[in-house]
This record gives sequence, structure tokens and C-alpha cells, in this order.
Amino acid sequence: MAVREKVFDVIIRCFKRHGAEVIDTPVFELKETLMGKYGEDSKLIYDLKDQGGELLSLRYDLTVPFARYLAMNKLTNIKRYHIAKVYRRDNPAMTRGRYREFYQCDFDIAGNFDPMIPDAECLKIMCEILSSLQIGDFLVKVNDRRILDGMFAICGVSDSKFRTICSSVDKLDKVSWEEVKNEMVGEKGLAPEVADRIGDYVQQHGGVSLVEQLLQDPKLSQNKQALEGLGDLKLLFEYLTLFGIDDKISFDLSLARGLDYYTGVIYEAVLLQTPAQAGEEPLGVGSVAAGGRYDGLVGMFDPKGRKVPCVGLSIGVERIFSIVEQRLEALEEKIRTTETQVLVASAQKKLLEERLKLVSELWDAGIKAELLYKKNPKLLNQLQYCEEAGIPLVAIIGEQELKDGVIKLRSVTSREEVDVRREDLVEEIKRRTGQPLCIC
Amino acid sequence: MAVREKVFDVIIRCFKRHGAEVIDTPVFELKETLMGKYGEDSKLIYDLKDQGGELLSLRYDLTVPFARYLAMNKLTNIKRYHIAKVYRRDNPAMTRGRYREFYQCDFDIAGNFDPMIPDAECLKIMCEILSSLQIGDFLVKVNDRRILDGMFAICGVSDSKFRTICSSVDKLDKVSWEEVKNEMVGEKGLAPEVADRIGDYVQQHGGVSLVEQLLQDPKLSQNKQALEGLGDLKLLFEYLTLFGIDDKISFDLSLARGLDYYTGVIYEAVLLQTPAQAGEEPLGVGSVAAGGRYDGLVGMFDPKGRKVPCVGLSIGVERIFSIVEQRLEALEEKIRTTETQVLVASAQKKLLEERLKLVSELWDAGIKAELLYKKNPKLLNQLQYCEEAGIPLVAIIGEQELKDGVIKLRSVTSREEVDVRREDLVEEIKRRTGQPLCIC
Repeated sequence: MAVREKVFDVIIRCFKRHGAEVIDTPVFELKETLMGKYGEDSKLIYDLKDQGGELLSLRYDLTVPFARYLAMNKLTNIKRYHIAKVYRRDNPAMTRGRYREFYQCDFDIAGNFDPMIPDAECLKIMCEILSSLQIGDFLVKVNDRRILDGMFAICGVSDSKFRTICSSVDKLDKVSWEEVKNEMVGEKGLAPEVADRIGDYVQQHGGVSLVEQLLQDPKLSQNKQALEGLGDLKLLFEYLTLFGIDDKISFDLSLARGLDYYTGVIYEAVLLQTPAQAGEEPLGVGSVAAGGRYDGLVGMFDPKGRKVPCVGLSIGVERIFSIVEQRLEALEEKIRTTETQVLVASAQKKLLEERLKLVSELWDAGIKAELLYKKNPKLLNQLQYCEEAGIPLVAIIGEQELKDGVIKLRSVTSREEVDVRREDLVEEIKRRTGQPLCIC
Repeated sequence: MAVREKVFDVIIRCFKRHGAEVIDTPVFELKETLMGKYGEDSKLIYDLKDQGGELLSLRYDLTVPFARYLAMNKLTNIKRYHIAKVYRRDNPAMTRGRYREFYQCDFDIAGNFDPMIPDAECLKIMCEILSSLQIGDFLVKVNDRRILDGMFAICGVSDSKFRTICSSVDKLDKVSWEEVKNEMVGEKGLAPEVADRIGDYVQQHGGVSLVEQLLQDPKLSQNKQALEGLGDLKLLFEYLTLFGIDDKISFDLSLARGLDYYTGVIYEAVLLQTPAQAGEEPLGVGSVAAGGRYDGLVGMFDPKGRKVPCVGLSIGVERIFSIVEQRLEALEEKIRTTETQVLVASAQKKLLEERLKLVSELWDAGIKAELLYKKNPKLLNQLQYCEEAGIPLVAIIGEQELKDGVIKLRSVTSREEVDVRREDLVEEIKRRTGQPLCIC
């Protein structure tokens, strides 16, 4: 949880920096809301038992509930983030950060805007977050559904096979082109020469120069959809250059993304190398963030089919937790699970009342303080508790100190002790623990 | 959500001040874990559909999952908080903040400690949070299950009727003694003179003097359980005095609390008056925080029945959201839903690239900034956006400003504009929005 809080903090600060408000939706949706949105993966949806009333299912992602929420509230314009758990009846794989209950961190921009400005901001956000988290070098692959569809069309794939060929292409980050081709030809009945034409395209990746090259491609540039996609990508690269992140972006024709609802730009961030240090198992983490444009989803929930264009991203935070945790373990860095600044302790017996009075004064002054729940704890036990919990300071009360109106303040690591006048104690603790004296 | 965030912030800061770590448990538990813990209310538990695998239910509260977690992980000692949603198949009552999905904010101390020290801290935490939230004056009613049981015994209630009579008594905060007596005699078959004896006790409330008075009560002081409870309450009041909150506490013999698992001290905070101001409907909010000691619950989940004594509290945060929201509405105070400090705007057309460059610079410097996603937005529209979203500053780019190397910084409320050198812009925005220049 301590690791999670640190990661969430980075993500939330970024989402807020980009002016997003936060919304929340229920953990369950009407079953019908989720039907027909996830293709084959629908079998992984958890249903609630029919105990009377509506038929409900646990949410599978945050995007479909968001689209349902927009349509229901007739919202046509919002920038929101949502951090919450989603549910999949899947086989968990702990080391890869795959669970049946897991967090998603989504940021989406809904509304009718000029092309590629919100899309560019989504990519900027992904880059800001991945840089801040310091989990190693990364690359964001970008493509466009319209380019994929146009490419399939000019290569000679029939419309009805777009989806299934698309999901074959999507495997290129895990298996070789040969295997993908075999699947296309052997399982999905594509002519070998059609597959080869696809192969010529999808093995290409590069920067804006590849976009320009394909804009000159005699066949692809004749396809209306592909042309639109390429034009938008060119514009996108301009904006990404202004945002200073074009070096992180790779136009990759093999990026396909599984979900049905994408309609335009799609993207996926991958770590370039897992931070495998001495004694660490390299993690097979796959993509750590992804997203894209889905202009048709909200309309599916509107009785009149009114569309609200959307673009968004999702941070694969469970995978990031795994990476950060493993890195900290390798460094043998101990993560504190509490934030306590000072333990109120006593050197002699019969000082419980004095300890209670002092700890209460500290709480009232905003200091994070604890005491052992024993009437007469041994000083050694109190000091040991600090060592274990990582508490940096001990405020020790003794008979003599009480007479002198002072508290003995001890640093746990250096073992240095100084007498501090009781009225100065709060300020001294704040000073030592780097807590600002003002409230900010 | 903006109100929620403010309320959660107060609560979490308090929980951390008291040295708690945060834990999380899954939204579903094994169905058998929840069975037999909530008495009649078990019918309100949501079950998941049997899709193969374990039979699961959505959690009903955070206490039972916490106890299950302690037993499963063989933990005997922890101070934790948990803020999460729980689920009840109940009839929602929005105005009273009662929903089928709602948040609980729980703080619990588990472990074998000296009497009443953790219990007193729980009450201190309740008082700190309710004071910080500024939702009006409050009172914390305190009682002890052992005193109630002892009282029933000496009044002549048979053991088998303790629970049902207890739940009659629990209604005294809503209905008169006459009605409660009628229920006890008419529905539950108590002899009228037994009911009257109970009535003499449960209509009493007061401070530590009432504890002392009952310790002298010839009958009650002969009952072992009651005597233990009264002795502990006396000690509790001593500690509460040291914590400076004894004036907030009322020993109230009518406080019974519905849940089965309490074994000792119980408490419930009520608002003394709902803050009904001009034009406001008074809210029937009932209790806003409650808790108690439950020494037997963890043992129910341990194969060997090993007990871990626990005491805790739960903040009724949905009711608090209602109160805070209604108060803000009455004050016509607009709550901002974003934290954006500055909108990057342009005075002329064809400045999208300059806006993108500037907003990116601001993001990279940690400034919360937005721009309109239009190529050529009108200045008026940009200023209106700030008014609506409560954004305090506008950084305006114009041809002349670009030549001069300055940005026009405009205050939205005062409409004052000054030219700021581009290299000083970040610092000036931080200064004006009260963001500390250092990162703290």
C-alpha cells in the first residue's frame, strides 16, 4: 500500500496538473451496459447473483462506465480522471501484475475539439507520468485504426476479416512475423501474397518521416481512411514536437490494440528495458500505459445515438507497482508504512498520564505521534518499536524532565539526546522532520 | 467528488497523525466469511453469481474483512485505516446519505494492550475529525456491552432475550420510552415491572459522576460483568480528561448499537444540531461516527480460535458529505472541481503553436495549466472558460508580447493585467497562487 500511495501520488498530481476533475462510478453496472463491448473477453465479466431487481455485473474497465455516464448525464464536454478497481474472471499472474481485481488509472478528454490537440495532451501525460515514476526508459508506439483499416483494404483483406487480421497483427510484439503470417494464412484463410503485402507494411516503424513516406505511398495515399489517419498523425507529430516528447514516440504500423471501440489514434507505452539489476529477475511487464481515440462509444448509450468524441489513456498501474516493489526489494530499501514523526516515551514507570497528556498536545499541534499502549513499557521496548517502525524521533518524559519543564528529544539513528523546553517541542519536531512550520 | 476529497483529506490526515498504516482488502469475500456476522441484516448482502470457482459476496462492512485478514495473516498487532466502499441491498435514501454502495472510513487498533488506552485514542480520533470538519457541535455517547448485559440480568431479563431487548433499547434515540416499553412488553413478552426497571436505568446519562454513582448501585455493582464495564469506563474517563475531550463525552445507558460482534465499550457520535440555516431543510442525519470493542471477531476466523482484541471506529462519511454539500449550497459557495492555476490563452489567431509551447513549459515546471482545444479560440471564450471553471489566472500570448519576450498575466477576478518576462512567469504564477516555491 505504501508503494501504491507513492505511485498514485505521481499519477494524480499529473492528472490534476492537466486540469482534470475526478469522477467516480459504481463498481457494478447494468449487465446490458457491458454486453457487446469487449468482444471475446466478455466471458471474463463477473455477474452478480439475481437476488431480485436489476441484473448487475462488476465493471470490466473504466472506459465503458465513463461513456455510459456521459450519455446518461448528457455531457458533451469533460476532462476527467478516474482511479478505481476493475474486475476480470481471469487466471491471476502475480509476477506480471495481473489480478482478478486490479486498479486502472484513466484520464479521458470528451468533446468536439480541433484535431489532435487533446490526443497530443494524452501522450504528453503518459510521458510525464512514466518519466516521473523513474521506472526506466520507455517508448510510446503510435498508430491509427484508420491507417490499419486502409492498409488492410489496399492489401486485399475483405472487410469482414479486418478485426481478426487486426488481432493477428497485434501479436507482433510477442511473436515473429513468420508466426503471425502462418496464423493469417493457415488459420484465418488469407492468401499468402495478401499476407506478404501486410508484412511489408507492419514491419515498418519510425518517426514523422515514415508518416511522410506513407503519405507518398501510391496505394495507401489513395485510400481515404488511411489518408485521414496519416494526415492526423502528421499533425500529431507537430504538436508532440512542441511538447518536447517527439523523441519518445514511434509510429509503429504493427500496433493494433485489441479493443473494439477505438476509432482513430491508438498508442501503447512499453519499457525499453526492465531494470534488471544484480539478483533481479527480469520482469515480463509488457505495456505499462495505453489508450486511444474512441468516437463512437458514447453514442452507443445515447437513445438518439448522439456521438461524443473521446480520447484517453490508462496507466497499467499494477505492473508499475510490481516494478517499483521489485526495484525497492533489490535495493533492500525499507519502505515505511506509517508516517509517525515521534514516539512519546517514558524513562520510568508510572508516567502513563504524562505520556497521554504530551501525545495529545502533539496531535493537537498536527504532529504525527504515537505511544505504546502499555501502562509501564520499558524504555528499551519503546526504542525498539521506533527502530522497527522507522520513527525518527523519541520524546522521552522522566521525573527530572518534568521538574525542569523539558522533554528529552532523542534521534533514533544518531542516538543523540537534547533537552527541549516543552513549549518549544512542537516547533523543534517540525524543524527536524522537515515539516513546514506554516500550513501549506 | 470535490467535497469528498476535502472530507477524506481531513480524515486521512488524522488517521496518519495517529500512526496508522493503510491496508486494502478485496471488494468481495468468500460468502462463508460474511455468514452469521450481521444478524438479520445478512439478507442485505450482495452475492456474486456462481460462474464456477468460489462463492463470493460483496463486502458488507470493513470490520469483518479486517478480522478475516488478521486471522489469515496471523497478525496479532496492527493499527490500520481503511477507506473503501461497502455494499448493501437496501432501499437508498439519498437525502440521509444512505446508498447501496457507500464509503466507510475505518480506523482500528488490534492487539493485547493495557485497558482503555487504545479505546481512549479511538474516541480522541473521532473528536479530532468531527472538530476539524466543522460540521457543528457534537456529542459522543459511550456505553459498554457488559454494563448493558449486567443491567438486563439484574432487571430480570432472561439470557435468551438480551439481544432482542438490546435492539429495543437501541431505538431510544428515535422514539420515546413509552413506545420502547410497549414493544418490550407487547411484542417481546417482558413483564411490565422488568421493563420499568430497565427504564429507570436506560433513561440516565451523564459524565464520570454517573459511572461512580452506578458503581455504588447496590444491585448493579454485584454483577461481575457490569462491574468490569463500569471500572473500565471510569478509567476511560480519566484518559479522556487527559486528552481534553471529556466534555464531548456522555455516558449514556440507552446506547446499545445493533451489531452482534461488540464485546466491551461502544460509542456513537451525534450532531447536537444540524446546521439548519436560512432556507435549509434540517437534515435527519443521525449518528456520524461510531465504533466499539470487538474482542471475539478475529477468533472466529482463526482455525484454533486464537483471539485478537480489537477496538475501532467508523466515520459515517456519506452523511458528512450530505451535510457539507448542503451547507456549501446554502452559502452559495461554488466548489471548484479542478485545481487549474492558469489558462494559456491567445489574443490573436494563429497562435496555437505558441500556446502549446507555453502550456508545455508550465506543465514541466509543475504548474497546473490548461488551454482550450481549439486552433483559434476567441479571447472572450477563453476568459469565460476561466470564469466558469474558477481558474484564477490567464497567461495571454500576443504578437507584441512574443516580440517583447513577455507574457500578459491577467487576474480573472480583478481583471488586472501585467506583462511578466517569460523566464519569470513560473515563479510569478506560483507566488500568486500561493504554491510554495520549494517542493514540500
